[in-house]
Amino acid sequence: MKTARFAYNGQIHEGIYKDDQLWVGTVAYDPNDVMWLPPVDPKGCTAIGVALGYADHAVELGLDLPEYPIVFHKMPHTLIGHGNKVVRPDVEYMHYEGELVAVMGRAAYKVSAEDALDYVAGYTIGNEYTVRDFVGNYYRPPVKAKGHDTFGPMGPVLVSADQIDPTNVEIRTYVNDELRQQGNTKNLRHSVADLIAYLSEFMTLNRGDIIFTGTPEGISHVYAGDKVRVEIDGIGVLENEIVDSL
Amino acid sequence: MKTARFAYNGQIHEGIYKDDQLWVGTVAYDPNDVMWLPPVDPKGCTAIGVALGYADHAVELGLDLPEYPIVFHKMPHTLIGHGNKVVRPDVEYMHYEGELVAVMGRAAYKVSAEDALDYVAGYTIGNEYTVRDFVGNYYRPPVKAKGHDTFGPMGPVLVSADQIDPTNVEIRTYVNDELRQQGNTKNLRHSVADLIAYLSEFMTLNRGDIIFTGTPEGISHVYAGDKVRVEIDGIGVLENEIVDSL
Repeated sequence: MKTARFAYNGQIHEGIYKDDQLWVGTVAYDPNDVMWLPPVDPKGCTAIGVALGYADHAVELGLDLPEYPIVFHKMPHTLIGHGNKVVRPDVEYMHYEGELVAVMGRAAYKVSAEDALDYVAGYTIGNEYTVRDFVGNYYRPPVKAKGHDTFGPMGPVLVSADQIDPTNVEIRTYVNDELRQQGNTKNLRHSVADLIAYLSEFMTLNRGDIIFTGTPEGISHVYAGDKVRVEIDGIGVLENEIVDSL
Repeated sequence: MKTARFAYNGQIHEGIYKDDQLWVGTVAYDPNDVMWLPPVDPKGCTAIGVALGYADHAVELGLDLPEYPIVFHKMPHTLIGHGNKVVRPDVEYMHYEGELVAVMGRAAYKVSAEDALDYVAGYTIGNEYTVRDFVGNYYRPPVKAKGHDTFGPMGPVLVSADQIDPTNVEIRTYVNDELRQQGNTKNLRHSVADLIAYLSEFMTLNRGDIIFTGTPEGISHVYAGDKVRVEIDGIGVLENEIVDSL
């Protein structure tokens, strides 16, 4: 099942995406007529991101890696939906990061990797924008690198966990129709199950919490006017345009 | 005015703290009979922390400082109220950090330091627990250092902004009645107003968002059984006991 959140006529709906329509009960909405929202309510959710989740991306950046996952927090005010605008701040290097995103279905605390996927509600696509200007120093301030308003597009839909094998998902990111990034979650340094086990060892992952699992090789700079599209087979297409201001 | 959130008989109340009682309309609750909650609803709030907010604390840790504030995110699942238990994980070095906490009263985006305090609803006390085991490496994973469940006690009350001068607040932290940490916000590297200006330059601070402003010199290790008390004149006393498990 594919679910979606969207706004229409001053109301927020949670619907089912089927036959190219958004269904709320027996009423169908045309996706072109609605404002897509993140498929999970950002209010009250904790979103964890993984830096250097793929070894090839770390090589690309010239970084040595510790064995454990390098995790950070992606703040809720960054999260927007499919089709919304991403605002580019006045910085030198801003790039996209196309990623598989896992969404928790129930609270997990100290769960093993073997059981971890039982706690997942489903999967969606994320584009975890980053300003590289602020990453290359000892304090690596992730709040400023990754916390700009609109820096976390997600969607378009949440696909239930039974429909996706998170260990073998192909990710492709296009900028203005040019393929720039391609990867497969089979090359994740830490699988979705391992990430949930690692995190839940010290913190409760609650229902609706989100894990951006990391991005493969192929980042590049983006600028206002660029249309960035992330595709994952079985989930769909997340497209957002970059603008200088709203 | 001092406001508080608390749970009583299966309901969550927002009350006014006056004459040692918690008032909800004309009904008074004895503070000893209630479960204190964080004075701001953690659900949907973004909590920013400041590392090395006081120069003396940086000296204590032997660190050089960049000029800008070093900010991180304190996740909502860490936040608890006065009188609740803090769970110590199985680590080597865990310490308290007594701090002044500012709470936003309305949305701030690109506001100047001059105007910043107009956006503050009020102030409370925070104890920003940290596991030092995870701080001393290049990747400085703040999620694991500062993101354990129960690692963010706040309270007991929120004092309205008109009652507090955030540029001159005395902070004292006691462990089992022994004074371990003493400082004054006049020695903050970045004042509350400067922090709001810095953050709001790249992110929207929404109503109810929280800033842990940093901790002065005097951290030390704490263990199960310790009672840790942070006092700020004009706000009150935030006390929590450390336990090995709930």
